[in-house]
Amino acid sequence: MPVFTILHRDKQTNARRGKLKTAHGTIETPFFMPAATKATGKFITTDDYNNLGKNTKVQAMICNAFILSCKPGIDVIKAAGGVHSFMNFKGVVFTDCGGFQMSRSMYEHKSDKGIHFRNPFNNQKIILTPQKIMEIELALGSDVAMMLDDMSGYGVSKEEARIAMNNTHAWGSLSLRIHQELRKKNKSKQLLFGIVQGNFYPDLRQESAKYISSLDFDGIAIGGVAIGEPMEKMYEAVDAALPYIPTEKPRYVMGVGSPLEILELIGRGIDCFDSVFPTQNARHGTMFTRTGKMYIMQTAYAFDFTPLEAGCECHTCQTYTKAYLHHLSKVEPGCFKRLTSIHNLCFMMNLIEDVKKAIKNDAFLEFKEEFKKEFCRKK
Amino acid sequence: MPVFTILHRDKQTNARRGKLKTAHGTIETPFFMPAATKATGKFITTDDYNNLGKNTKVQAMICNAFILSCKPGIDVIKAAGGVHSFMNFKGVVFTDCGGFQMSRSMYEHKSDKGIHFRNPFNNQKIILTPQKIMEIELALGSDVAMMLDDMSGYGVSKEEARIAMNNTHAWGSLSLRIHQELRKKNKSKQLLFGIVQGNFYPDLRQESAKYISSLDFDGIAIGGVAIGEPMEKMYEAVDAALPYIPTEKPRYVMGVGSPLEILELIGRGIDCFDSVFPTQNARHGTMFTRTGKMYIMQTAYAFDFTPLEAGCECHTCQTYTKAYLHHLSKVEPGCFKRLTSIHNLCFMMNLIEDVKKAIKNDAFLEFKEEFKKEFCRKK
Repeated sequence: MPVFTILHRDKQTNARRGKLKTAHGTIETPFFMPAATKATGKFITTDDYNNLGKNTKVQAMICNAFILSCKPGIDVIKAAGGVHSFMNFKGVVFTDCGGFQMSRSMYEHKSDKGIHFRNPFNNQKIILTPQKIMEIELALGSDVAMMLDDMSGYGVSKEEARIAMNNTHAWGSLSLRIHQELRKKNKSKQLLFGIVQGNFYPDLRQESAKYISSLDFDGIAIGGVAIGEPMEKMYEAVDAALPYIPTEKPRYVMGVGSPLEILELIGRGIDCFDSVFPTQNARHGTMFTRTGKMYIMQTAYAFDFTPLEAGCECHTCQTYTKAYLHHLSKVEPGCFKRLTSIHNLCFMMNLIEDVKKAIKNDAFLEFKEEFKKEFCRKK
Repeated sequence: MPVFTILHRDKQTNARRGKLKTAHGTIETPFFMPAATKATGKFITTDDYNNLGKNTKVQAMICNAFILSCKPGIDVIKAAGGVHSFMNFKGVVFTDCGGFQMSRSMYEHKSDKGIHFRNPFNNQKIILTPQKIMEIELALGSDVAMMLDDMSGYGVSKEEARIAMNNTHAWGSLSLRIHQELRKKNKSKQLLFGIVQGNFYPDLRQESAKYISSLDFDGIAIGGVAIGEPMEKMYEAVDAALPYIPTEKPRYVMGVGSPLEILELIGRGIDCFDSVFPTQNARHGTMFTRTGKMYIMQTAYAFDFTPLEAGCECHTCQTYTKAYLHHLSKVEPGCFKRLTSIHNLCFMMNLIEDVKKAIKNDAFLEFKEEFKKEFCRKK
């Protein structure tokens, strides 16, 4: 069985249903991954990811390989038997290492060798090279490793963007070679995804998509978006790259995003997503429902003894009312954030389930328009 | 059926098994209640109280009536249909109002009329009188209301202790009369417990126990202990009062305590307990096991891939290892506190279950000694 199989292509859009085979089971695409950067969610743990509601769980999550190598350390996770058993997660685990160029508490500088970090826990200097990160990701035992990329920030010059892209390309071919050796040596089934960079210069995106797609990665990601740019810029970057990324490979846009952005990208043929958007919104009290967003901290909900969303089967809606969650937001914010995160993640999982059904029925476009109309309705 | 029935008296000690009938079901005694001061635990919510493990739940909890009257407010909880349905708790709810004389953020002063508070949420001045607190507790719909008492601090003069005791006695008889009227008028089945005061003066404790026991309360509590005194002082105060409290009534020592203190008091014939001790310990990483306390934040546990306690059926032990909890303590303290609280509460519930079995078999003394030996063992 190949790593990725397309089961159905929507007749009206580029949306597709597929399945991705990993060492920890086969996952249907498209799918959405919440972050578990430090081998845990924020205010929410794996037990909730494994059981968002009676029939809903998180199917895949993404951890940060560099962070985990600092704490608890690779030796701990290896001794635990890998990251899945360390955190007792039943699904598919992706590991990433980049995206931290933005974090002033860790990032020092970069060179053509790799990214120069400082361990935020003990202040030790570390150079993350393709060799190093491939070793870390393999040791963690994730199902899908992401290559080391060099991401340039929003608004940088074309020259700077090109340097980052060139580093990404060099590190990509190096990562692939190292990973193939390590995989063989360790009899590992870990997959490796390449990452397209090129900032918001369409010609660079095109060049990067061509180069990364020329390498034998198991999947292709578009990175360096959702970093503060306007939404149209994000679509422009994705649209510049997509024609050069083979349709037979799983395609992943990193760090996106809102339910509407995800639907837009699914319509363009993207299969994998990760984002802190649903849980970040939840922590600030913005609840997702099919009939629009709801700001549960508003006084209007103090006397509302109905669940966040009628008919929602998430643990939170099955257990508590809006009034109680509103109360928790005032007196016990940590518990509030756990319960609201459960709801918004369950919302995302159910949305993706419905998307898959719509694609199957060649009705994705209608589904997307209908969802958009309801979700954007003023409450 | 009477409110309280003694099912069995241990042959060697004053320990007894019984049952307390409340509006929300009959609860076996002895029992232990965690705090839900603000209609929630700290870092742990009712869904966890209702499901600590496969077969273990919290059977009773205690809320603070005054705090709830400030936030979310009585009108919210009344509209929710009472405190049980507001927080979706399946067990028995006690409400208390005192104990806040110690809290500088709220307490202003006292008079013979009542306790003068300041609402911590809006700074408004409030006098809590017996009339006022009985109305609040009835409106909350708790199963057991505690009378308004006047608690003096540890180390006060006998004169000061006597003033507080006299206030308590006056408020006690007034509370009882008001509660009987309110209960009749509202067709309520709420029980009312009296509270013995008298500080650490044995003759005052004796006087207070006699007076409070002379009134027709549904149960008798000993308050004003576990406020910073040495352990022997606590036992001295309890021992001074106990001979004057009828054995046919449920007896409650408020705010105690550690597993060993609870066992000591059960042996003296106490039936009800509440304490933040197990959850407070959990939040600081002190885990209870039958073979002693364990400090899970110690580096020694970073590589320990066994559960907190072998054979423990709590949600935490069934899901995570010591190594993972150790990791969470460093990177996600809120989640750590939830999971450790679940374990320590489950430990308390299971301890009480075993105590009840031991009493049934007239083997409480042996059980207590055996438990003490194991629990105090140096690890």
